[in-house]
Amino acid sequence: MNLGKVIGTVVSTRKEPSMDGLKLMLVRYVDSEGKETGGHVVAADAVGAGPDELVLVASGSSARQTAATDKKPVDAVIMAIVDSWDIDGTVKYKK
Amino acid sequence: MNLGKVIGTVVSTRKEPSMDGLKLMLVRYVDSEGKETGGHVVAADAVGAGPDELVLVASGSSARQTAATDKKPVDAVIMAIVDSWDIDGTVKYKK
Amino acid sequence: MNLGKVIGTVVSTRKEPSMDGLKLMLVRYVDSEGKETGGHVVAADAVGAGPDELVLVASGSSARQTAATDKKPVDAVIMAIVDSWDIDGTVKYKK
Amino acid sequence: MNLGKVIGTVVSTRKEPSMDGLKLMLVRYVDSEGKETGGHVVAADAVGAGPDELVLVASGSSARQTAATDKKPVDAVIMAIVDSWDIDGTVKYKK
Amino acid sequence: MNLGKVIGTVVSTRKEPSMDGLKLMLVRYVDSEGKETGGHVVAADAVGAGPDELVLVASGSSARQTAATDKKPVDAVIMAIVDSWDIDGTVKYKK
Repeated sequence: MNLGKVIGTVVSTRKEPSMDGLKLMLVRYVDSEGKETGGHVVAADAVGAGPDELVLVASGSSARQTAATDKKPVDAVIMAIVDSWDIDGTVKYKK
Repeated sequence: MNLGKVIGTVVSTRKEPSMDGLKLMLVRYVDSEGKETGGHVVAADAVGAGPDELVLVASGSSARQTAATDKKPVDAVIMAIVDSWDIDGTVKYKK
Repeated sequence: MNLGKVIGTVVSTRKEPSMDGLKLMLVRYVDSEGKETGGHVVAADAVGAGPDELVLVASGSSARQTAATDKKPVDAVIMAIVDSWDIDGTVKYKK
Repeated sequence: MNLGKVIGTVVSTRKEPSMDGLKLMLVRYVDSEGKETGGHVVAADAVGAGPDELVLVASGSSARQTAATDKKPVDAVIMAIVDSWDIDGTVKYKK
Repeated sequence: MNLGKVIGTVVSTRKEPSMDGLKLMLVRYVDSEGKETGGHVVAADAVGAGPDELVLVASGSSARQTAATDKKPVDAVIMAIVDSWDIDGTVKYKK
């Protein structure tokens, strides 16, 4: 999975019908220090993430392994909201 | 999913038979500001996208999770036409 | 899918048995202007592509969605020969 | 698979329910000399890896092929702890 | 698939049980001229490849489509040993 920060939302009305009701978030990837890397992805939200939250994004077929995304044309999903992470015993991020 | 802009179409007559009738679009990826990144992909169209429209492209096995692409050798699909997106509460694109 | 140009063939006799009879082509990727990008891939040929032809390559699990590649350890397949493509209404390539 | 070094852990309480009990490790990729490459990934731990251990990470749908990760929205898994590797007959790393 | 050269082996005793007996090779990718690109991957060996041999590596879910790797957490497999390849009619490599 990749660490990312929710920075916005994407709205679409004309879409594959199975996408109805799925919330699409714009997520900017962050590195292990929490700094934005410049890359981004549009991910379906399976956990009720909000703006500025740090999240985990699963990609590929694994993005369809949530109740919200099963059998949908979704290649990225927010499947966890990050509370904290540490590196070498030092807390790098805490919500 | 990735944000992209439909810039053209690709025509092929000699192809895997299951591809018959599937429209193939040339899509240039755009960043979260809507600027073209230089990268492109040829994506099957599942939603009737037209030239210059901003779209979402799903890749990998998820590209086969639409009625149009099921069980076809397609690794990228346009599965939504973008109406708008915002970053930090500011509208970055509106159709 | 990605646009590519068939530049050669790869020969292997010692291989997974299911690969028997499958033709393996060396494909150089081209950008949306038709210029080679430097990247390449070895792709199974599902459509009878020949040297110098412009083709579409599908990657990942979608590469197994052809009659020729079903259930084989193949992560890239030529599934269409390109006749032409256009960008913003201008023909960029015509066979 | 990719070689990596376990450098930390990621904690999340609000997540897809199937993720409960799964340990998430922060892994920095290393090159074939064992030097960190700068890239990282958050991987589920299927083998009880600890801090500073060199591990193998499997990505994509293959990350779900362990008892710990089956049918979960996980796109990276630690599926082996590395004892050693050699290049051209020279041991490059030994635990 | 990608062209690569077998440069070493990786040993692991603590691993997902399904990995038992599977040989793991360190493979350096080569370009279409046969020059090493700097990138590498750890791939399961399905065909009995030896040191310095040029091989084809299949990645992703396709890496599980061999007798040796079926249902295992393996995202890269050596599924062919390369005898030769040519570009524009010129032999670039011959075993």
